[in-house]
Amino acid sequence: MNAELEKQKIQEVIKLWLQASKSGDTGTVLQLMADDVVFLLPGQEPMRGRSGFAAAAQSSGQKFRLVEATPRIQEVIIAGDYAFCWNYLDLKMADQADGAIYRRAGNVLTVFRKEPDGRWVIFRDANLLTPQKN
Amino acid sequence: MNAELEKQKIQEVIKLWLQASKSGDTGTVLQLMADDVVFLLPGQEPMRGRSGFAAAAQSSGQKFRLVEATPRIQEVIIAGDYAFCWNYLDLKMADQADGAIYRRAGNVLTVFRKEPDGRWVIFRDANLLTPQKN
Repeated sequence: MNAELEKQKIQEVIKLWLQASKSGDTGTVLQLMADDVVFLLPGQEPMRGRSGFAAAAQSSGQKFRLVEATPRIQEVIIAGDYAFCWNYLDLKMADQADGAIYRRAGNVLTVFRKEPDGRWVIFRDANLLTPQKN
Repeated sequence: MNAELEKQKIQEVIKLWLQASKSGDTGTVLQLMADDVVFLLPGQEPMRGRSGFAAAAQSSGQKFRLVEATPRIQEVIIAGDYAFCWNYLDLKMADQADGAIYRRAGNVLTVFRKEPDGRWVIFRDANLLTPQKN
């Protein structure tokens, strides 16, 4: 296994994830996560599975649109068929009703899993983003 | 590698961590983390290294004492010399000044690393605990 190549693939997944999120392309976003993905957020129940994500994305997408996403990847470590990424994300979202911009930023710790076809998908994700001043 | 045995070892690290934290035994707690550990918390700068943890523990220990810690381990996955654990932690802390009890609970996503001597230590930790009603 070429660890550098695998790291690049994971960085591509993150890039594609953010691009597709900005375009509102939930279909592509769903393909970048494991079927049994779990998203962890402070003060919320775990969001489980593609179906859980899709429902939340639909509800959130009616209120907010992601307009800017700046990832600062701190590290990617490959461990066999799993990988870990510590990322610092800075997001700007627009309120669909009035266009007001909300910024959220913070660290994300993500576990990726390698699927049998060689693709890396998001498997576990702990999202520590908090509201920021614009 | 016997994955079940390694999982048990990681569960022991978590148990020992919580016991030592309750006893205020920072020396033992420090031995359970990698020298280059990083703790991620919402709205805070990453806490880096054993020295960063020790300084924060000393400051926090003057104000609060951990009196109860209930882990509900959701999963442990071994991936070579790394492992990750999704845990739900419920903590009760006592204010050192007046004995008032504060409860914090939530999910934690932790990456463990296997040291050359075979011990598992905490390497990366995303802590999503939020204040709860007692």
